[in-house]
Amino acid sequence: MTADLLILDCHVATMEADGVAYGAIEDAAILIEDGKVVWVGPRTDQPTTDARETHRLEGCWVTPGLIDCHTHLVFGGDRSGEFEKRLGGATYEEIARAGGGIVSSVAATRAATEDQLYASAARRLEGLKATGVTTVEIKSGYGLDRDSELKMLRVARRIGREAGVRVRTSYLGLHALPPERRIEGGREAYLDAAIDDILPAANAEGLVDAVDAYCEPIAFTVEETSRLFDRARGLDLPVKLHADQLSDGGGAALAARYGALSADHIEHTSEAGVEAMAEAGVVAVLLPGAYLMLRETTPPPVDLLRRHGVRMAVATDCNPGTSPVASMTAALNLACVQFRLTPEEALAGATRVAAQALGLSDVAGRIAPGLAADLAVWNISRPAELCYWLGAPLLERRYVGGRAA
Amino acid sequence: MTADLLILDCHVATMEADGVAYGAIEDAAILIEDGKVVWVGPRTDQPTTDARETHRLEGCWVTPGLIDCHTHLVFGGDRSGEFEKRLGGATYEEIARAGGGIVSSVAATRAATEDQLYASAARRLEGLKATGVTTVEIKSGYGLDRDSELKMLRVARRIGREAGVRVRTSYLGLHALPPERRIEGGREAYLDAAIDDILPAANAEGLVDAVDAYCEPIAFTVEETSRLFDRARGLDLPVKLHADQLSDGGGAALAARYGALSADHIEHTSEAGVEAMAEAGVVAVLLPGAYLMLRETTPPPVDLLRRHGVRMAVATDCNPGTSPVASMTAALNLACVQFRLTPEEALAGATRVAAQALGLSDVAGRIAPGLAADLAVWNISRPAELCYWLGAPLLERRYVGGRAA
Repeated sequence: MTADLLILDCHVATMEADGVAYGAIEDAAILIEDGKVVWVGPRTDQPTTDARETHRLEGCWVTPGLIDCHTHLVFGGDRSGEFEKRLGGATYEEIARAGGGIVSSVAATRAATEDQLYASAARRLEGLKATGVTTVEIKSGYGLDRDSELKMLRVARRIGREAGVRVRTSYLGLHALPPERRIEGGREAYLDAAIDDILPAANAEGLVDAVDAYCEPIAFTVEETSRLFDRARGLDLPVKLHADQLSDGGGAALAARYGALSADHIEHTSEAGVEAMAEAGVVAVLLPGAYLMLRETTPPPVDLLRRHGVRMAVATDCNPGTSPVASMTAALNLACVQFRLTPEEALAGATRVAAQALGLSDVAGRIAPGLAADLAVWNISRPAELCYWLGAPLLERRYVGGRAA
Repeated sequence: MTADLLILDCHVATMEADGVAYGAIEDAAILIEDGKVVWVGPRTDQPTTDARETHRLEGCWVTPGLIDCHTHLVFGGDRSGEFEKRLGGATYEEIARAGGGIVSSVAATRAATEDQLYASAARRLEGLKATGVTTVEIKSGYGLDRDSELKMLRVARRIGREAGVRVRTSYLGLHALPPERRIEGGREAYLDAAIDDILPAANAEGLVDAVDAYCEPIAFTVEETSRLFDRARGLDLPVKLHADQLSDGGGAALAARYGALSADHIEHTSEAGVEAMAEAGVVAVLLPGAYLMLRETTPPPVDLLRRHGVRMAVATDCNPGTSPVASMTAALNLACVQFRLTPEEALAGATRVAAQALGLSDVAGRIAPGLAADLAVWNISRPAELCYWLGAPLLERRYVGGRAA
């Protein structure tokens, strides 16, 4: 057997759902060729190999590179000033009247150049990479006009080319009604633009891997979202949904109806919604950072999800308003502490299941022959440590496509 | 004026309580000589200087190096396995029966060599240093016998000599009753040892900067703690206290009675306790990491503390059981999100007030002439960003005693 790289002196959490906790293999070996894993198993079973290079990892644990499957990583400005005002006693209304809230992120994103957006996103991405992330989903949704939405998605693509991570984009034109459309007839005109103009234009430029929407009374209705999803279907694009975050608006059921890759947030999803997700195979993406920052008190229905066999992913939701979280291990910790996920569930949620939430099951999220050699190497004594620590530097290195990154 | 170092192209949050938010000076200069700040002010007021070296910080913000004034950084083993068992459904009782809980940390700490303890603590310290910490308090309390308590404190001193931070030690012999003392007469014998033997021995070796205790029904009583504090007074050592964390046991009042540097946790302190702290000038040390991890629902009485003028510090409480937190900015974020501190209160709590909690007001915690040039340099647009982000890498560099560290 030939290989570009042989990895030794390590334990591997393959994250295969094979009945062994974490799919763990102690004292393992990994063989990599052409950027893909070609063999993984116990060192003693390793086939005779002529490897060009050997990396010895001194007893570290190797997991699949982490996948952050829900972020708004690209945006202009920041909202720490607003955070400070809120803690100083200002109400949401006062902040909105002063031009704060999502409107301020939209204005700053529209005003920024692609280079500026790239630079600020790349900096936030450092926090994710330092916590083992090798694939990141990035949404549009702070542009809310044709040029600005395309600009955001181009920046996301550039991150995928230049920043040492794989990127999946989601078009989130239905994130909020842009301020200039908050006039008579503006809503309908924006829906026309977002669904019939911006989405096809972005897709024609190859900028869209999935279509997302914020379905909530304060954002877009089930009917409006359905119209977007019908269009996505016509373009052969998968869909996903911000659903039932603040109230049970039937978002999970809607996601199920369209066979969505995922329904995200779902704090307020009913048992009927969970059942619909289970039947349609929709992944639940849990976002514990937003739950913390918003001081929510209704966690997602984890026991129901378990009972009905809905797979759970975990993501940072990195965004300037409700989840300024730029650490994937922080998301893992918060998912365990706040939502009572087990460390194995949380880590699966950041690997195998996160890949499913992005339609990448055959590419990433497990350490298995044929999948990309996207790996995170950790100086830990057991996989649960990744969920236990908040802020401890545990990562030794990452591999993306078999290359140390 | 001569100087070893001139720092330019920066904004400075001096954290002086001078009426200006954060003691901020935009476009500032700092002059450093012999490891101390000799001048700080607006660049345009800068005295003519012959500086040996100039550092230009490209518009970064400079704050005092952060001070983590409550940690249990030195310990053997880890308790991620126990964390995992609890999330898998095991009760605290089942874990205790299986040798878990603090007893397991005591066993692992006793079994570890000084080198092993140093190496594991130094690794956790990297998380603190990466979030701007230049001074860290480190407690004993997992040794609980003479040799092991002294071993922990020697490791803490070594961290202060070798690891690029200032260290203040606290002797925490009254942390828990050691397992071998849980026999008839064992409690009294352990109190004798901890108070009359181990403390004086540690102090004779120069290992003790302050004396601490865990005053709580599950740990030590007010009377037992008083006996320890009397002894500390005899040795001319300042005291501090883990007080009223799980119940109002009169800990804050006790701390006040002894003129303690700080009372820490204080989730359940009554208004009378707060008044006593105010009168005695005791600092309240808030520990939001433990609050999160224990899923507490009673926050410390922040409004009462404000109303009575009790100063509030913020710390990580880094420890293996209840606060596996190794990021000072995470502690700042959690203090704001969970306890509703303003970012300025939180940052003061990690600088000026934290210095007071350690008796270091004349040494660190502000950027002012005569104080150590312990600085943290941040790539941020305003100080509030330090409290806003969870896990984003914001630090550009640290200076300890005027040297880039």
